[in-house]
Amino acid sequence: MTSTTHTSAVFTLETMDVPGGTETILRGGRHLLPLLPQAFAGVRRIGVIGWGPQGRAQARNLRDSLAGTDIRVSVGLRPGSASAADARAHGFTEEDGTLGDWLAVTADSDLVILLIADAALAAHHEEIFAALRPGATIGLSHGFLLGHLRATGGEFPPGQGVIAVCPKGMGDSVRRLYEQGAEINGAGINSSYAVHADPDGKATDRALGWSVALGSPYTFRTTLESEYRSDIVGERAILLGAVHGIVESLYTRYRLSGDDPVTAYERSCENVTGPIARTISHAGLRAVREELDPAGREVFDRAYSATYGPAREIVAEIYDEVADGTELRSVVLAERRLGAREMSGIGGSPMWAAGAEVRARRAERALPVEPFTAGVFVATMTAQVDEFAERGHPWSEIVNESVIEAVDSLLPYMHARDVAYMVDNCSRTARLGTRRWGPRFQAAYEQIAYPASELPPNEALLAAFDTHPLHEALAAAAKLRPSVDISVV
Amino acid sequence: MTSTTHTSAVFTLETMDVPGGTETILRGGRHLLPLLPQAFAGVRRIGVIGWGPQGRAQARNLRDSLAGTDIRVSVGLRPGSASAADARAHGFTEEDGTLGDWLAVTADSDLVILLIADAALAAHHEEIFAALRPGATIGLSHGFLLGHLRATGGEFPPGQGVIAVCPKGMGDSVRRLYEQGAEINGAGINSSYAVHADPDGKATDRALGWSVALGSPYTFRTTLESEYRSDIVGERAILLGAVHGIVESLYTRYRLSGDDPVTAYERSCENVTGPIARTISHAGLRAVREELDPAGREVFDRAYSATYGPAREIVAEIYDEVADGTELRSVVLAERRLGAREMSGIGGSPMWAAGAEVRARRAERALPVEPFTAGVFVATMTAQVDEFAERGHPWSEIVNESVIEAVDSLLPYMHARDVAYMVDNCSRTARLGTRRWGPRFQAAYEQIAYPASELPPNEALLAAFDTHPLHEALAAAAKLRPSVDISVV
Repeated sequence: MTSTTHTSAVFTLETMDVPGGTETILRGGRHLLPLLPQAFAGVRRIGVIGWGPQGRAQARNLRDSLAGTDIRVSVGLRPGSASAADARAHGFTEEDGTLGDWLAVTADSDLVILLIADAALAAHHEEIFAALRPGATIGLSHGFLLGHLRATGGEFPPGQGVIAVCPKGMGDSVRRLYEQGAEINGAGINSSYAVHADPDGKATDRALGWSVALGSPYTFRTTLESEYRSDIVGERAILLGAVHGIVESLYTRYRLSGDDPVTAYERSCENVTGPIARTISHAGLRAVREELDPAGREVFDRAYSATYGPAREIVAEIYDEVADGTELRSVVLAERRLGAREMSGIGGSPMWAAGAEVRARRAERALPVEPFTAGVFVATMTAQVDEFAERGHPWSEIVNESVIEAVDSLLPYMHARDVAYMVDNCSRTARLGTRRWGPRFQAAYEQIAYPASELPPNEALLAAFDTHPLHEALAAAAKLRPSVDISVV
Repeated sequence: MTSTTHTSAVFTLETMDVPGGTETILRGGRHLLPLLPQAFAGVRRIGVIGWGPQGRAQARNLRDSLAGTDIRVSVGLRPGSASAADARAHGFTEEDGTLGDWLAVTADSDLVILLIADAALAAHHEEIFAALRPGATIGLSHGFLLGHLRATGGEFPPGQGVIAVCPKGMGDSVRRLYEQGAEINGAGINSSYAVHADPDGKATDRALGWSVALGSPYTFRTTLESEYRSDIVGERAILLGAVHGIVESLYTRYRLSGDDPVTAYERSCENVTGPIARTISHAGLRAVREELDPAGREVFDRAYSATYGPAREIVAEIYDEVADGTELRSVVLAERRLGAREMSGIGGSPMWAAGAEVRARRAERALPVEPFTAGVFVATMTAQVDEFAERGHPWSEIVNESVIEAVDSLLPYMHARDVAYMVDNCSRTARLGTRRWGPRFQAAYEQIAYPASELPPNEALLAAFDTHPLHEALAAAAKLRPSVDISVV
């Protein structure tokens, strides 16, 4: 569905082998920073609107990468924003003109990067559009606004460029890995980019420049539509929603089999966010199974076989609802219904009480991969990969949105806090989606997958996993980026 | 939102006190059968299209009630329908012209009652509309088609009458209680009715006649829109979806507290479908609490207080999605995605394995009401009542769709089989809805309500329950109908 071939007047692109063909990508790195003024030709001021996790990370990365050039990065905030103090603490100030009212910063910028929350974007995009100077480029970091405009019959302002650079990781990771990249060139979060409107022909280089400035080890091309779908589906499935459903259902399973709370937590949540995520990050998805002993593999195989089908069914359902606009419609309804009320948290569940003790025990011993948990998790991840492939997404998008973002950004963060904390502290669109879909995974696994895991494994399904083109695509993506254990405090 | 005042040229209506006013209703009974020819003036042939549970029940009740008149009831089936043999076994035959092709029966009838499955209705309503004779009346038993026409931009054919009579119970109950009504005049399932299009001014009497012929103890007025909303929300909430979520979550809770599977099943599923449903049916909702000892009441109060809020949130969410059309859109997407594939069942969950032993033990002793289970169930039911009241539904609709249909039709059926069997064997729209929303109740209760049940009860919430106008409305509705324990084999 998405052509991944593209050309740049500034950067040297590379060809990456992917299943069934190649994709054109840009390998990033600090050595490309001198090319940024050329990539941003015509852009004198970049306005980052919003100081949430992405705004906070991107504004700082952009400023640091553009230091010494005459391109200025400013932060625009809503009047009275509670984030102003933190922005000032990070060196964006009214005094030097790098902090201001969001509409004023918008009016003053050549590239306006919109990183405010989805609900704010839905409510205020028209004011922001009206404030744009002619010829300014709109920058997005996910496709939500496209979905919203479709759902409401709105449009991007004609004549303005519209580009997206979408880091495949949380804002915190975008900053932290960028910092690590000062030591290890190429450490960072991969990004996709999309050119949605290109009135002056400079959109591709601006987008690639933006991505390089964020520290992306590699940047691949997609469309805003494809990005929107994979982003919203991914967070409802393997990135957040499914993880929540998986660990809740496994915790209960281990508790019912006689485990005490701490052991059950270690075998479920701790296992996913720790050894399983780490193994996938370092050695790929197949290694999770291969590193098990024969008895463990047998357990993995039964869990994988029983989980893949129910997982695929739910991912397909999510995909249909996202592609149709139904899911976003639900978000709009929920925002309207909740109004100013706080969303209820999920962190009160008994399992989270065991988390602190589990984290305290980490130093004592290396936790081995739990074969059943691994089979369930890997099957769910593979189901998402297969659904995305069937729907025609580029392979770079598939592996980044289904595997790399999970194991290199979100799961390490969950490992440092816990899954419930992460869910209760991410974007409202993601939180609402996790509440809608996490329980679906939980119930389907408890009611369908786990009972079926008593049956012998499905050899055809396992052979398909073993020879899956995903492994090759993941290996190709891994070559473009140094292996860095992200530090999360 | 719905005016419940109406008049009839044939039947003597009554006024029923409800909170905040009165509603005009028709009390049914066998003594009204002689009025049917007058109510059906101009109708010589009634075509019942479809032989699912409702078609099977309604065709037989209508035929029995109209025996001795010159109004003939025929059944119309799709070519090659597997139901033809069963229809013949119940006396509808090609030979006497009471069984035929659905389009032929449609073309030949003055009142065409559409009781085919939702998906078939969505796919074939245009053919059926085209086959209608001029002046014929379309009869519906729920508002699905209205929702579908809205979602797809379709319309009812202009010039044709459109009425609905909606029994507040399963097809099996509609037939079984009608049979019991031969002994006990007035036993039956209450129905709502709606007049959506009335070109000849006879719609109200036709609808009331249809309802009397089905054996409805009382018939109240609604609109197709209000019926549609309460029907689809109700089955996703207290009638099916919430029941499933409640018993799954409680079973796990009791198992984790040390119960063996049989005891956990008795305290959760068996308790809801047995003693709790029976108490509500015989003595109302407040009696569930009042019949507990003081220690039991304290447990009930904590469970009620902790559950009401999360329950209300989910019911409000379901309501928004149904009213907006989003929920029906999801059903359409699911039908398209599933195609001819069977929907996965939920009956494989470990808890159902305990059901047979529990049912075998029934004769040994009377199971007492489990206070915690009762608090959870009653809070969920009250939350639905409150949400419907806030959205402006008539009280008759509220109590029938939230309480009476549950305790007098669905729960007794679940008691005879089990909840999973019921869910896996109801309409596809209901099954899809249960799969979507049951897990939401389960997860919210496990993660939010049950942990909060350790806290002291919320006295304001309990006072509101104690003085709830619902109790009065339920008592008024109960007076209109003899108390009959439905026999379910």
